[in-house]
Amino acid sequence: MDGMVQKVLEGNVRAVARLISMVENRRPEARQLVSRLYKHSGRAYVIGITGPPGVGKSSLIMEIALSFRREGSSVGILAVDPTSPFSGGALLGDRTRMQNLSTDKGVFIRSMGSRGSLGGLTMAVPDAIHILDAMGKEIILLETVGSGQAEVDVMNFAHTVLLVTMPRTGDQIQALKAGIIEIADIFCVNKCDLDGADLVALELETMLQMKEDVKATDWVPPVVKTSVKTSEGIRELYEALLRHKAYMASSGLLEEKQRKRREKAFFDYLEFRINSLVRERLREDSRYGGLLKAIMEGQLDPGTAVDRVASEVSLGPRA
Amino acid sequence: MDGMVQKVLEGNVRAVARLISMVENRRPEARQLVSRLYKHSGRAYVIGITGPPGVGKSSLIMEIALSFRREGSSVGILAVDPTSPFSGGALLGDRTRMQNLSTDKGVFIRSMGSRGSLGGLTMAVPDAIHILDAMGKEIILLETVGSGQAEVDVMNFAHTVLLVTMPRTGDQIQALKAGIIEIADIFCVNKCDLDGADLVALELETMLQMKEDVKATDWVPPVVKTSVKTSEGIRELYEALLRHKAYMASSGLLEEKQRKRREKAFFDYLEFRINSLVRERLREDSRYGGLLKAIMEGQLDPGTAVDRVASEVSLGPRA
Repeated sequence: MDGMVQKVLEGNVRAVARLISMVENRRPEARQLVSRLYKHSGRAYVIGITGPPGVGKSSLIMEIALSFRREGSSVGILAVDPTSPFSGGALLGDRTRMQNLSTDKGVFIRSMGSRGSLGGLTMAVPDAIHILDAMGKEIILLETVGSGQAEVDVMNFAHTVLLVTMPRTGDQIQALKAGIIEIADIFCVNKCDLDGADLVALELETMLQMKEDVKATDWVPPVVKTSVKTSEGIRELYEALLRHKAYMASSGLLEEKQRKRREKAFFDYLEFRINSLVRERLREDSRYGGLLKAIMEGQLDPGTAVDRVASEVSLGPRA
Repeated sequence: MDGMVQKVLEGNVRAVARLISMVENRRPEARQLVSRLYKHSGRAYVIGITGPPGVGKSSLIMEIALSFRREGSSVGILAVDPTSPFSGGALLGDRTRMQNLSTDKGVFIRSMGSRGSLGGLTMAVPDAIHILDAMGKEIILLETVGSGQAEVDVMNFAHTVLLVTMPRTGDQIQALKAGIIEIADIFCVNKCDLDGADLVALELETMLQMKEDVKATDWVPPVVKTSVKTSEGIRELYEALLRHKAYMASSGLLEEKQRKRREKAFFDYLEFRINSLVRERLREDSRYGGLLKAIMEGQLDPGTAVDRVASEVSLGPRA
C-alpha cells in the first residue's frame, strides 16, 4: 500500500489510473489510500467547464489545457458524465483531438461516469480531484455536460466555473438552466465564427446586468467569444481564467470555497456511510422484519414507519 | 386537519393543490396528513411518460388523458421537471393546449420542480402520487423530461414507462440514455408525420431485438408511431398502454412493483430524516466542533472523520 501511495505522489500514471478506478468501484482499500494522500493535496486549482452538449467543450478544454501547458503548469483533465454508466475508457463527445494531448506527459486525462448512482459520483469526483492534486497536477480541468442538478453538484467542486454556450440555436440561453447560471464565473460563447455570436453574447451580458445587489468588489462574470477553428478569443479566455483565479485568492473566496468543499465531502460521505449502516441493520435485525413487511404490504405508511425508526437512531460515544 | 383529509378524499381540487404545496415545502403537518390518506390510496395506476425535450410529450399526454377520459376513468397529471427550481404554476414546455383539459373536472393537472434538491423531489413525488390516488384518480400520468439519473428516479414510481422520441434528429436514440431505455415498457415515435419516423422505429425495434435472455412470458416493449397532428397511432398507443396495464396485473409484476415502491419511499424518507438528524447533532454537540473545524481547515481528511463519526451511530431501542 505504501508503494501505491508513493507511486501516486511520484506522478505514476498507471498507479493514478488504478487508484481512480478503485475509488469509482468503492473498493474498501481506496478509502485508506485516499486518506494517506490527503495531506499531500490541496494545492491544485480546479476549473469546471460545463454547458449543453454540442457546444464544443472538449475542443475548448484542449485549448485551455495547452495554454496552461505553455506556461509550464501541469494539467489534469477529469471528464464527468453524470448520465453515463460508463467510465474510464468512455469518452465524452468527440475526444479524438484531445487524445493528442495525452502524449504530453504533463497532461493526465480521465473520464468518469455515474455507474448509475449520482451519490457514488459525488463521492468519487472529490476523491479523483485529490488524487490528481496529490500526483502534482497544478490545474485540474473538470468537465461535465449540462444535465440539471447533477451538473451543479459536480461544478460545486470547482474553484472557477466556466459555462460554455454557442450561437445559432435560439434556445441556447434557455437551455442553460437557472441553477448553473448562478454559479458561473465566466461565460463563453464558443464557435463564434458562426452567425449570431454577438447576439448571444449581448443576451448573456444583458442577463448578467440584471443581477441585483452587486457590490463594487464583486466579481463580474465576463462574456468571452471563442472559436477553436479560428483561435479567436482563446487567449482572452485564458486571461479571464487567470484573472478569476487571482481574484479568488486575493478575495479570500478560494479559502472559503476550500472549506465548504471539505465540509461537503465530509457530509456526503458520512450520509452514504450512515445510510448503508442503517439499511444493513434494518435488514439484519429481526425486530425490524415485521416493520419492513408491513410497509411493503401497504399496511403501514412509510412516514409513520420512519418516525418510529428515526427515534431509535442515536449518535454519541457508547456508554 | 380532519377537514383537509376529508376534502382531499372528496376530490376537492383546492385542498389537493394546497396539500401538494405543503408536501413540496416539507411542512411538518404534511407528513401526518399524507399518513392519514395512506390507507385510502394504492388503487391508482401510474403511467410515466419521459423523453428528450421537444418530442411533444405534453400534447401526447393530453391525447392519452382524453383517451382514458372517454372510457370514464378519472385522470391526474403530474409534470415533474427535476431541472427546474419552480413548481405549482410553472409549466413544462408548451402546456397551453393541455390547459383546455383542466376545465374537465375529471382531470387534475399539477407541475412540480425540484426546488434545487433532487432528494426533496424523490420524496415529494411519491407523496403527490398518494394524494392524487386518495382523491380518487384512477390513472396518474407522470411526466418528466429526460435528464439522467433524476429521470430514472422519477420513472421508478411509475407502473408503466412510456419513452417518447421523434424522427429527424439523427441522434435521438443516442440521446435516450441507457438507464431509461432499460426501464421503458412502451416506445413511442411521436411526430411520425415528419420524415424518418419509420427509420427511428426500425432502429428502436432492432435495438430491442438485441436484448438477451428474454423469456417467452416477458413483456416485449412495442414501438408505436404517433402524430398528434394527424391523430395517427393515438388509438394504438392507448391500446398498448391498456395491454401493459393488464400484463402488469396478471403477471404479478404490479404487486411486486408496488412493494418495491413502498420500500423505496420508506428508505428515501428514512435517509433524509437520519441525515438531517445527524447533521443537527454534529452542529450542536460541542464534542464534534473540533472535528468539523479540523475537516474544514484541511487538517483531517473527510474519510477518517467519517470512520470516527459512523462508529458512534447506533440504531435500536434505548436501554
